[in-house]
Amino acid sequence: MNDLLKTLYAATENELQRQIARLDTPRTREFHQMLTYHMGWTGAGAGPEAAGKRIRPQLLLLCAASSGGDWQKALPAAAAVELLHNFSLIHDDIEDHSDKRRGRATLWACWGIPQAINAGDGLFVLCDLALDDLAKNYSAQIALTAAKILHQTSLRLTAGQYQDMSYEKRTDLNEADYWPMISGKTAALIAASCEIGAVLAEVGTPTRAAYREFGEALGLAFQVQDDLLGIWGDEAQTGKSAASDLLEGKKSLPVLYGLGQRGKFAARWERGPISPVEVVQVSQFLAEEGASGYTQNKATEWTEKALTSLESAHPYGEAGATLHHLAQRLLGRSN
Amino acid sequence: MNDLLKTLYAATENELQRQIARLDTPRTREFHQMLTYHMGWTGAGAGPEAAGKRIRPQLLLLCAASSGGDWQKALPAAAAVELLHNFSLIHDDIEDHSDKRRGRATLWACWGIPQAINAGDGLFVLCDLALDDLAKNYSAQIALTAAKILHQTSLRLTAGQYQDMSYEKRTDLNEADYWPMISGKTAALIAASCEIGAVLAEVGTPTRAAYREFGEALGLAFQVQDDLLGIWGDEAQTGKSAASDLLEGKKSLPVLYGLGQRGKFAARWERGPISPVEVVQVSQFLAEEGASGYTQNKATEWTEKALTSLESAHPYGEAGATLHHLAQRLLGRSN
Repeated sequence: MNDLLKTLYAATENELQRQIARLDTPRTREFHQMLTYHMGWTGAGAGPEAAGKRIRPQLLLLCAASSGGDWQKALPAAAAVELLHNFSLIHDDIEDHSDKRRGRATLWACWGIPQAINAGDGLFVLCDLALDDLAKNYSAQIALTAAKILHQTSLRLTAGQYQDMSYEKRTDLNEADYWPMISGKTAALIAASCEIGAVLAEVGTPTRAAYREFGEALGLAFQVQDDLLGIWGDEAQTGKSAASDLLEGKKSLPVLYGLGQRGKFAARWERGPISPVEVVQVSQFLAEEGASGYTQNKATEWTEKALTSLESAHPYGEAGATLHHLAQRLLGRSN
Repeated sequence: MNDLLKTLYAATENELQRQIARLDTPRTREFHQMLTYHMGWTGAGAGPEAAGKRIRPQLLLLCAASSGGDWQKALPAAAAVELLHNFSLIHDDIEDHSDKRRGRATLWACWGIPQAINAGDGLFVLCDLALDDLAKNYSAQIALTAAKILHQTSLRLTAGQYQDMSYEKRTDLNEADYWPMISGKTAALIAASCEIGAVLAEVGTPTRAAYREFGEALGLAFQVQDDLLGIWGDEAQTGKSAASDLLEGKKSLPVLYGLGQRGKFAARWERGPISPVEVVQVSQFLAEEGASGYTQNKATEWTEKALTSLESAHPYGEAGATLHHLAQRLLGRSN
């Protein structure tokens, strides 16, 4: 991390703690504790590893600063996108019955499903209250524009999550079902983070659109690469067992592409869950039918699109250089 | 219902349908259907009975109109408070494991818990998007003020729900634990509905405060009366079995008052769930220890406070008369 990224990270953590402290009252002590546990600040295994990278707020602040805005004034918005992201993580973990996240027990695994649903709701509300704070630093019009972008994003998030869950029972899916789900679940919030940064810098419409397109393409490139690694990744690099997405039955791009080929892979997939002993063979079927090449091409396409959009946004100064650097790293072009 | 109430009801339903139609897309058809089912418009048992009375939007519109505002312009805010209320109902039903609401299967009982959590989230997002629509009819400043009131209310709702759930395991409760929980869970949103109505009519600070206090007291009076009926109500009138709140172990005002007396009632309560054969005896302990008289007094106090605050708000015109009439009916002073 360079110095600017370190500064932004520390300022974001500070702002997040300030926003979440709204629930730090004598009668809601444990409610507050659930949220600080989830955010990675307290409880067993607390620390930067548990907190995660805070990519979305960093993108928001860098987009604001690299287009001429003051990142310090944008901090409530940076907190808002991270709070929204974490609201969705808490509810997704319940919905997917995932009992581990970043190596720690998930919130519902610690406090039970009823309290975890309500804790997720609390983060959503705190996201709205953080957005309301923008009116202290910006005109009411700008504060409303930023809020509206995030609310439309939230709608795409819930629609994407609905699709993801409804796909579980379906066997008639193909690639056309992939993009709307993944653009809602992953790309929408990254796009919104970049766009809100630009809105808070009061840039013109073309620059705002360029930042947004950068975020959307970055989110899609990132997700498609993740899908590729989830089947053909190096265990040492990914930290997961090989082809783990196939074992979990995840409807990733290679899988949906493969289902559309109606070949050996699709025939095997439709017979039910794949066991560890078959997984190498099934991933070979998928590669032979063109899924790995196709997915690699899509990852390259979205990566190029992200970098082209970033160029056309003309980010400048130290923040611009840092944004380039962060994008390259997220896109796997550097370490 | 008088003619104005009928008009407001129909306009609210129309606005709610318009707001929820944001999810009426080819890829989110079933998601939309979950919401129209919950709202009482579609599926088994659909109709006005399933939809409920829409008290909160009616109060908001009447407060706006009776203080000089245009209720038609306030419709997005009316939809927002009802969407927020229904978001909380969907999640509360999951958290409380309630499989029936207004005589119909709850959303989670029909579609499962994961989809129901996400459907509740969807209503929360739609509430925010409805609030954003206010900027079409009002200045950005007024739209932000209304939104902020509702967001602060949402925080009180989640804090109240946290308290309600955390009380389940506790036996050391008394009346002091009742008011923060119930003001968050019930009174906050009714107070916000009245206050937002006044804000949209652009009244001065004292009138806005009077409308808010009216709503808060109305909500508390309504809840305390409900608690009274839940133990000593007439089955024919309430439609529930006698003393049903005692059977369910609900932490209502008479119960928390009774626990604070540390007498026969508290001793019996602490030994575990109350069975139907004991219920008459236990409700007699509670009445003998002063809980019914105390609760009745509190209901009267809050009712008087609600009516006094309503007077000092000086609601006028047909809307003012209708607001008086609705308040009297909700407070059990007329039918």
